[in-house]
Formats: sequence, structure tokens, C-alpha cells
Amino acid sequence: MDILFKNARVITMDEATSYLENAYVAVSGRKIEYVGTCRPEKTPKREIDARGKVIMPGIVNTHTHIPMTLFRGLSDDCELQVWLTQYIWPAEDKLTSDRVRLASELAIAEMLRSGTTSFSDSYFFVDAIADAVKSSGIRANLSRSIVGSGEEYEEMASVSEMKELYKNYHMFDDGRIKVDASIHAEYTSETECRIKTAAFARENGLVLQIHTSETKKEHNDCIEKYGRTPTAQFEKEGLFDGVTPLLAHCCHITEDDMEIIRNRGGSVAHCPYSNLKLASGVAPVPAMMKKGVNVTLATDGVASNNNTDMFEEIKLFATLHKGICGDPTAIGALKALRAATLNGAAAQGRSNLGRIKKGFEADMIMLDFDRPHLIPCHNTISNVVYSANGSDVVMTMVGGKILYEDGEFKTIDIERVKSLLA
Amino acid sequence: MDILFKNARVITMDEATSYLENAYVAVSGRKIEYVGTCRPEKTPKREIDARGKVIMPGIVNTHTHIPMTLFRGLSDDCELQVWLTQYIWPAEDKLTSDRVRLASELAIAEMLRSGTTSFSDSYFFVDAIADAVKSSGIRANLSRSIVGSGEEYEEMASVSEMKELYKNYHMFDDGRIKVDASIHAEYTSETECRIKTAAFARENGLVLQIHTSETKKEHNDCIEKYGRTPTAQFEKEGLFDGVTPLLAHCCHITEDDMEIIRNRGGSVAHCPYSNLKLASGVAPVPAMMKKGVNVTLATDGVASNNNTDMFEEIKLFATLHKGICGDPTAIGALKALRAATLNGAAAQGRSNLGRIKKGFEADMIMLDFDRPHLIPCHNTISNVVYSANGSDVVMTMVGGKILYEDGEFKTIDIERVKSLLA
Repeated sequence: MDILFKNARVITMDEATSYLENAYVAVSGRKIEYVGTCRPEKTPKREIDARGKVIMPGIVNTHTHIPMTLFRGLSDDCELQVWLTQYIWPAEDKLTSDRVRLASELAIAEMLRSGTTSFSDSYFFVDAIADAVKSSGIRANLSRSIVGSGEEYEEMASVSEMKELYKNYHMFDDGRIKVDASIHAEYTSETECRIKTAAFARENGLVLQIHTSETKKEHNDCIEKYGRTPTAQFEKEGLFDGVTPLLAHCCHITEDDMEIIRNRGGSVAHCPYSNLKLASGVAPVPAMMKKGVNVTLATDGVASNNNTDMFEEIKLFATLHKGICGDPTAIGALKALRAATLNGAAAQGRSNLGRIKKGFEADMIMLDFDRPHLIPCHNTISNVVYSANGSDVVMTMVGGKILYEDGEFKTIDIERVKSLLA
Repeated sequence: MDILFKNARVITMDEATSYLENAYVAVSGRKIEYVGTCRPEKTPKREIDARGKVIMPGIVNTHTHIPMTLFRGLSDDCELQVWLTQYIWPAEDKLTSDRVRLASELAIAEMLRSGTTSFSDSYFFVDAIADAVKSSGIRANLSRSIVGSGEEYEEMASVSEMKELYKNYHMFDDGRIKVDASIHAEYTSETECRIKTAAFARENGLVLQIHTSETKKEHNDCIEKYGRTPTAQFEKEGLFDGVTPLLAHCCHITEDDMEIIRNRGGSVAHCPYSNLKLASGVAPVPAMMKKGVNVTLATDGVASNNNTDMFEEIKLFATLHKGICGDPTAIGALKALRAATLNGAAAQGRSNLGRIKKGFEADMIMLDFDRPHLIPCHNTISNVVYSANGSDVVMTMVGGKILYEDGEFKTIDIERVKSLLA
């Protein structure tokens, strides 16, 4: 036994016992060895007193573009086209592999500090991103975003990069890194390109990420072009045959779209803050959940958020839809927390992640509850969802390794990163 | 000169120079003596190096009920009537003056820690609240909330308490504490009660707080009862003649209501998180601002939020209305920050508050920007609004006195409060 946490309040996310008090959590190697209220007999290498703390599964952020951390606050409060053409694209044109490597380290530090232990990404310069993920110890599903017509598909640099990424990193470190396939979006690709990218996902058993129905315009333009919604078009093209989709945003999907996603065992990466900030709208999440779609939570890139604090998304998720639907029971605290942990893990194709449970991956975080805004604590799950923020995280563990503890990063030279980027 | 901050990035909120770099801010007594980029000649008693920090005006929270901090997480995710009748009212029935005093200290600690330097409150056990405000050093507009028919008005305990509060605390400590009048709401009072309470405000030059059109039901019931909206009914009753109203929520007010509020020089306390969480709706804030209404920000009580971190309200304010209106330019970052500072100060009837400017009250906060989620900093105001949270505050000053610094409360025995309430 490597580490034993004692005196902990534990949110297990396990159906039977979602919450334990005065509990022990034991970690051996990469896995959780024990969780319960009796002290295990074995002597641990390290014992951590979690009195006044809350232990819960690490957060899973299912849609982001971590190098965009470089563009934090570069441009806000403007039209999407202005944002893209005048600010983001010119800035992306100047990116280099070195800058992306640094930005990725900064982004990972920010995520670890605020309790995210696994994330799903799509971008370019993926080798630099993967290298930062590899050395930092965080868990991730990485993908090279593909755009284009699909003519001369095999000659495209992006396709080579996707394949290289797969070859070099898929299932690295016992699956800590997985590689996904990624079609950027319907409006930035053509059918042939999508079919070929989906085929790559199918052949290799990869999750397929796609930006879907993010804006009303994108959604309506697709209907005009093909006579059907993006999701229905993807289904028609056979993209989802034997492929599990992870569709980002889905602000404007229909009930029929929801049924397609559910029937394909797919997931939606709901990005409430990004959707509000870019004025994309409010995704019909209560309807998706009613239909049985696996709804997960995400920050999107920092350029449209402008941070990766998943506690902000959890609180907004649990309140926004109440206000929009006029129903205070729309999404309860436990459901919100499940979306940010278990559901996210499922969307990444990780069935042994997202619970504090024997045999599960030891991805856990510890929150300091001895702070004014977390007192009193009538209900721990409520305080986590509605009162806490990412800065309350004091310990972040991935695969049994503590990567962040009491302000200190164990695998990232944060002062070097800051000095080069601040 | 008492304190000199140097090397600071300063958000002044001053029209001419909203942002300064490498600046000095000097404080003498209660007031700001200097702000600018040249070092003042006088020698300060204390010099604080603000390198890597951002100094901005303290946040003003214009609508809360601080003793409700006791009910944090007591009940969430249920219908308003269930929330009130099964949880909140029974819990309020058990309140004592001692508990309210303690809860107030906890709430003030939470506010100071997250950058709030002034707040507007309405509740009962006001003597205990005022005593906590007095000893803590925070700034506040306090009121005893009045409900009832207004018959035998002078014999009501609440009216005596309002008058006692006024006598004992109005303009205490050079105006640090001001007393407001408060009508709880249209649906919990009758015309006579409202007219008499407004008269008390008029005679004494007090702000008049009222919960207004928070829920659709309340708004529509009033129309059914009187043939007009709550705001129009208040206007008809003459409540606002010579009285400045501060109307909380206003989720369902009409354009005509907005004109009444503007013409009376009144303010709206917009509580975006509480309105979403209780499923009250989304207040038509962009329309209010277009009409020239003074829109301010607030958390409401912790039972419906569930914290008093105004940075969460600022971010939600600046993003929610973009998403609802489908307009990414709806509310810019600087406007959001102005609502939380200058506009709030104006709603409290405090004309020399809310700016870092010579002669203004020295209510300021300092944020540590040397943190992963605040790097890079292309735009300081953007990072404050969209990336920061209340935990980034490392110094809070009210009226020239530092009340919170680097985790330490100068006027509150936080360990005692926690031990009695945790």
C-alpha cells in the first residue's frame, strides 16, 4: 500500500454509497485498493490526514484546446467572426511547437491546480501537447483535428500527424494517454474527409470528437446544404457505425439528433460558459438527459472561457438549466457532479475511471473544506457543487501519483513556464 | 501617508484612466491620497510591493441576507415553496441573536476574503448584524425588512427595530454603516405598510430596498390584484417620491417599469446566480442598461447561491446575457466590473466610493496575478472578469484599514467562529 488517506469525507460517486464520513482511502500503484470506514490492516508508505478535507474523483474535462491558453483574454466581447479572423487565427498562425509545449505545460498546471485529472483535446502541434502530457503525468485523450475536403487525404499533413500521434502515444503508460480521432466540424470538412477520418477511428477503436451544432448558423447552414442537421448528416454518412462519438457543444441539436447520439452510445461535451460567452446559446441539456444521452462537462479552450476551472462549469451547469427551464429540480447537485466525473470518463472510453472504488484508477482530488465559504457544511455534495471553486483543491492525484499538493507542482517547473509566458 | 502600494497594476474605474501600470497608490487615513505613476514625495508608514498584483476598487454586493450563511447547502434543487416552507422558514424560526451574530461574522469573513468591501442587507436580528459589521470594519447599508398590513404599524416590533437600527447605527463611523429602509416585497405587504415605510425613508433620506418581480408568479399575481406590475404599483402609491429605490432581482420587469426606476434615480440589484438556482429566470439586464437604469450586482443570500463570491456573479453577468441575447457584445468586461463597483456604490448612496481616485474612500482589494489561471495577461480587466475568482484576493482594505491580508483576518477571530459553526 502506497498511500492511505484517513479521516476523510469521501464522495465516491458509487451508486450504492455516494458519500462516506470518517473514511479511509488506500492507493496501491495506479489503483484504488480500498475505500471504507474500517482502517485497512496493511501499513502504508505514506499516511495523509484528510481531516477537514473532502476526497472525490478527479474531474474530467471532455472538450478543450489546451494551447489556446496562450490566448487568454486576447479578445473578448466581440462577434465570432471578428474573434476568429482578427484575433485567434492570426495568433494561431504565429504558433510554434515550442510555444505550444510551454502553453500545454501551463494549461496542465492550471488544470491540476483546479482538480482536473483527465481531459479530451483536439488541436494541432499535437506532438508538443502529447509530450507535455507525457511528462506531466496527467491523463488525456488527445486528437489531431482534421479539416478539409478529403481529396488526397493520405497526403495531408494533418492526417500524417493524426497517424503519428496514434502510433507514438495511443495507450501510452498503461492507457494514461489515449488517442482519439477528430473531425473539426461539419462546416470545415467535406463528406469524404469525414468518412476517412471515421474509418481511422473505426479501425483502431478510437473515440471520434466533432464540434457539432455549436452555433445556430452552422446548424442551419448544414440543413440548407444537406437537408438535415449535422448530427443526422454524420449518421447518414455512416460515421458512427462502430464508432463512439463525442460531440462538443450541441447547442442546437434536435430531439432526433439526441436519439442518434444515444443509440450510438455517444456523448455530448457540454461547455456552458463558452457557449454563453461566444453567444452560441444554451444547449438543451435537460432534454438530452431525458433521452438518455451521456452528458459530460467541459471548459472549451481558454480563449472563450477564460479559464479551465471545471468547478465553474459544474455550478453553472447545475443552475443555468434551472433558470432556463423554470424548473429548480432540472439538474440536481449529484447529477452535475456525475457529469463532471463518471460521465466524462465514459466519454473518454475509460470504464474504470470516475469513482472512488476498489480497482478503479486512483485519480482523486482533495478539497480543503476548512474555509469560510464552505462552512457550515450541511451537505458535502452541495458545497462542492454550489460553493467551492478550483482554488479549494489542495491535492491532485492521477494514476496513484500525486501531481499537485499544497501549491506545489511535482512534475512541472511552473516558475520556468511562468517566466517564459507571463 | 499611511500606506503606499508600489509597482501595481491598477484598475481605477475612472473614466479617463481605467487602467495604470507600474503605478503607486497612497492611502492616508480613510482616503486615497494619490494614484499615479510618479512616486509621491512623502514617506509612508508602510510600503507594500504590489508587483505581480492587481489593485482595484473593493466589490459592492447590493443585495444579500448575511445570516442566511447558516443555511448554506441546507436545501437545494427543490421548488421555491418547498424550499421556503420545509427548510428556510423552520430554520429561521430557530434563529437567535447569538447565532445571527456568529453567522454575520462568518459571512463578513467570507466577503472580505473574496474581495467584497461593502454590502446591502435586509433581514431581522439587525442589531446582531450591525454589531458584527461594526466590529469587523466592513462597510454596509443595513436594513430591517418590513412585512405586514400596516395596521397598528407603530406597534410592530419590526418597525421599532428599524427605528432603533436607524438611531443607533445610521452614519456610524463616518458613514461606514448606513441604514436603509426595506419593504420585503409587494406580496408580503399591503399598501399602508409600504407607504409608512417609504415615509420613514423619505423623512430620513434613506435608500429603500424592495424585492421586486423576482418570480413570474409574484409579478403576475400583482397585476391580477392591482392591474399593474409591482414597480408600477409602488410608483402609484407614491413610494418613490423623494426616495431612491434599490429593487432586488427585477427578473420580470417591463420596459415601463425600467423607465420608472430610471426616472426615480433608482437601482436594480441583479442576482444572476440566485435567479438561475431558484429558477426565477433571467432579468432583462441589457434592456435595463439601454434604458439607463443603474444596474448593480449581488449574490442574494447564501441559501440560494451558495456563496458570496462576487467574482462568480461578475463572470456570469458578463457571459449570461451574451448567451441569452445571442449577442457577444451585450455586456463587456469593463461594464461588468463597473456594475460590481461604481454602480453598487451609487445604489448605496455613496458617491465617493467605487474608484481608485484621490479623495475617494480607500476601499480596495489586491489580487495575486502570479497564478496559472491568470497567465498570460493580455488584458488585466479581462482576466479579472473572466479568469479570476474570489480566492485570488490577497488583501482587502476598507476605509484605509487592511481587514484581510494573505489569509489572515485582522478583525475577526475566524477560528472561534468556525469552531462554533462548522
